[in-house]
Amino acid sequence: MLFFTQCFGAVLDLIHLRFQHYKAKRVFSAAGQLVCVVNPTHSLKYAPTLCAAAQTSTEQGILPPCHHHEAVHDPQLVPCMCPLFSCPWEGHLEVVVSHLRQTHHINILHGAEIVFLATDMHLPAPTDWIIMHSCLGHQFLLVLRKQEKYEGHPQFFATMMLIGTPTQADNFTYRLELNRNQRRLKWEATPRSVLECVDSVISDGDCLVLNTSLAQLFSDNGSLAIGIAITTSKVHNPEAEM
Amino acid sequence: MLFFTQCFGAVLDLIHLRFQHYKAKRVFSAAGQLVCVVNPTHSLKYAPTLCAAAQTSTEQGILPPCHHHEAVHDPQLVPCMCPLFSCPWEGHLEVVVSHLRQTHHINILHGAEIVFLATDMHLPAPTDWIIMHSCLGHQFLLVLRKQEKYEGHPQFFATMMLIGTPTQADNFTYRLELNRNQRRLKWEATPRSVLECVDSVISDGDCLVLNTSLAQLFSDNGSLAIGIAITTSKVHNPEAEM
Repeated sequence: MLFFTQCFGAVLDLIHLRFQHYKAKRVFSAAGQLVCVVNPTHSLKYAPTLCAAAQTSTEQGILPPCHHHEAVHDPQLVPCMCPLFSCPWEGHLEVVVSHLRQTHHINILHGAEIVFLATDMHLPAPTDWIIMHSCLGHQFLLVLRKQEKYEGHPQFFATMMLIGTPTQADNFTYRLELNRNQRRLKWEATPRSVLECVDSVISDGDCLVLNTSLAQLFSDNGSLAIGIAITTSKVHNPEAEM
Repeated sequence: MLFFTQCFGAVLDLIHLRFQHYKAKRVFSAAGQLVCVVNPTHSLKYAPTLCAAAQTSTEQGILPPCHHHEAVHDPQLVPCMCPLFSCPWEGHLEVVVSHLRQTHHINILHGAEIVFLATDMHLPAPTDWIIMHSCLGHQFLLVLRKQEKYEGHPQFFATMMLIGTPTQADNFTYRLELNRNQRRLKWEATPRSVLECVDSVISDGDCLVLNTSLAQLFSDNGSLAIGIAITTSKVHNPEAEM
């Protein structure tokens, strides 16, 4: 009986995933775009008190403390960026991708344009949705984080980082796009390098920021579809530097 | 002597305005786009306690109280939307534009694409920047508001409303675009009608929302340039309704 119940549950899950996938494809109405369903990981690393402290320092114009980087002496050594738990690993850029895949089972997607479908947006902060994206000969890391900068008011922060050096990152432009309910929000920027601190990018607010009400407007049944496109800066965005 | 000092001050102001105008034109790099310098008006209408109350109710999914509308019995009567002070005026849609121009000296600009250059972004909340925009045979109202939803953390909210009915508003799409420092943020939506309450649109967060750090990234010398474009929905955005 238990076996049948579990089978039925699994079938329902598959139908639900298929349905979400179909809806995300409809939302972006782009034939051939890869839709990836990304489940949340509850972040244990970021205690609310730490977030509050980082926020205070950012609001005062001071960079928040980036504890990882203080401990890294070789500037080419990257600490583990998986927000699931405090992973003591650190290594060179070349092995970051294999560490994230093997140790933390983070998926890697291929293609210039993909749709990132974050599920269970209602889960309490701090929560992260994380995926790797391979295109134009490089690997990128997309982090969507639900965090309470102001106690009781969770916000969503989305950013893309290059698993490469800052000089390499300058050659690219990434675009995050939300599109639903006759509203469209687009964020375009140069990705940061993972040699910088993902926490400080999010604390600075130099990323796509959504408050709860906007996130709800763009969500469908608790899932948020984010269209992602990466281009080389020089071709795509000649007027970006002004 | 006083005369010469004043003359010198006026010349300096003109040079400063001209410089801002030139910079905004460079930012949007679109020949022929009209740049309008909009000075702030310190809003006396919105006490922080009222904002906090409205925020609380919005977070709970209840529409904030819209005091103006409670007093309006004729649904076609519009209260004065000028946020400078509590203006007791109310009138029909047809005379809203002339009231805003004549009584509150709000500028009206013509053209499908304009650049709204809000000055003195550093001024404390609550502050508003407001302008009318005439295009495609209709008048629109652009409101940029600096408000503290969370005490001590001012945010910027930008929305566009049609001086017309909700049915007329459904025919248009407006786009607000920020573009600076290799970052670009675009918000596209259907304008609301001024028969709805501008306060509730902003309290709901159903508009372009910027936190202080993003506003600083997009500002230049304390001024924020917002590119505005209005199109008819059916031609411009066929996939908007999904």
